Amino acid sequence: MAQGKGLAVVLAEDHYEDLELQYPRLRLQEAGFEVQVAGPEKGATYTSKHGYPVQTDVAFGDVDPKFVKVLVVPGGYAPDRMRRDPACLKLVSGAVDAGAVLGAICHGGWVPISARVLKGKRLTSVAAIRDDLVNAGAEWVDEPCVTDGKLVTAQVPKDLPVFMQAILALA
Amino acid sequence: MAQGKGLAVVLAEDHYEDLELQYPRLRLQEAGFEVQVAGPEKGATYTSKHGYPVQTDVAFGDVDPKFVKVLVVPGGYAPDRMRRDPACLKLVSGAVDAGAVLGAICHGGWVPISARVLKGKRLTSVAAIRDDLVNAGAEWVDEPCVTDGKLVTAQVPKDLPVFMQAILALA
Repeated sequence: MAQGKGLAVVLAEDHYEDLELQYPRLRLQEAGFEVQVAGPEKGATYTSKHGYPVQTDVAFGDVDPKFVKVLVVPGGYAPDRMRRDPACLKLVSGAVDAGAVLGAICHGGWVPISARVLKGKRLTSVAAIRDDLVNAGAEWVDEPCVTDGKLVTAQVPKDLPVFMQAILALA
Repeated sequence: MAQGKGLAVVLAEDHYEDLELQYPRLRLQEAGFEVQVAGPEKGATYTSKHGYPVQTDVAFGDVDPKFVKVLVVPGGYAPDRMRRDPACLKLVSGAVDAGAVLGAICHGGWVPISARVLKGKRLTSVAAIRDDLVNAGAEWVDEPCVTDGKLVTAQVPKDLPVFMQAILALA
């Protein structure tokens, strides 16, 4: 495998969509990134919608945003929990400010809404949260995967291959 | 995404290990293969150990082995079911005879044992089925991922990144 691409962070919380967390996690490893799974607590286990476990390497607040090259927000109902955590939002906004590639898929868009980094951005999501994204000042388009600057968004698990290709093309 | 790499087949049955089926399926799509999920019945839904569903595109017997470039056998307890199906074993042995890359991870090795394609091969697996592979005439080594000719084997889900890199290097 390639090595030394830098730090990639994948956010975790309970009720994450299984593949939307695990495919990016493994794919970024495969591409040579040091991948850290970040959640509310370090060393804790969070489980997917179907019960698949993932263990966190770090707490949200442990990550220095300026070293993050890629940050991925999976979907499922995990983002509804993540967005309540100020340390999570600070990590997301800090990474964006520092020039990280930000990927959000499905319901993942709720987190960058609350991190206030989406105004004027062209993006997509699962249809259910379209209104939330529009109300946050984004331009929502009905495409499987959308890139705007360093923001990559996608709709549902079947879009994971194009989502990761788009992220890796920028990272 | 790249296109036109040819046909890749991922085998499915109930109790598959979630990521060992889904990561190769999505990764081969991302690499430009036409991916078909094959199982006992076409259009049927099989569920992972944690309950994640996958729908088959084709039945085992519908695939012409000579068009298969890559065939992946996931782990979990799905292989214990697959190996009882003569159409599955015929697909695996036919694809190997036709020069396909064969990948098997974790308990996936049970299927090529019963397809009788492992004699003299250097390989690995989850530790539990080491004796079955040795008794089938293979040389078992304790490494995360092993390539011997067009056979790629790996041990557990955390080896998926190196497993897919090894498969794609050959395909």
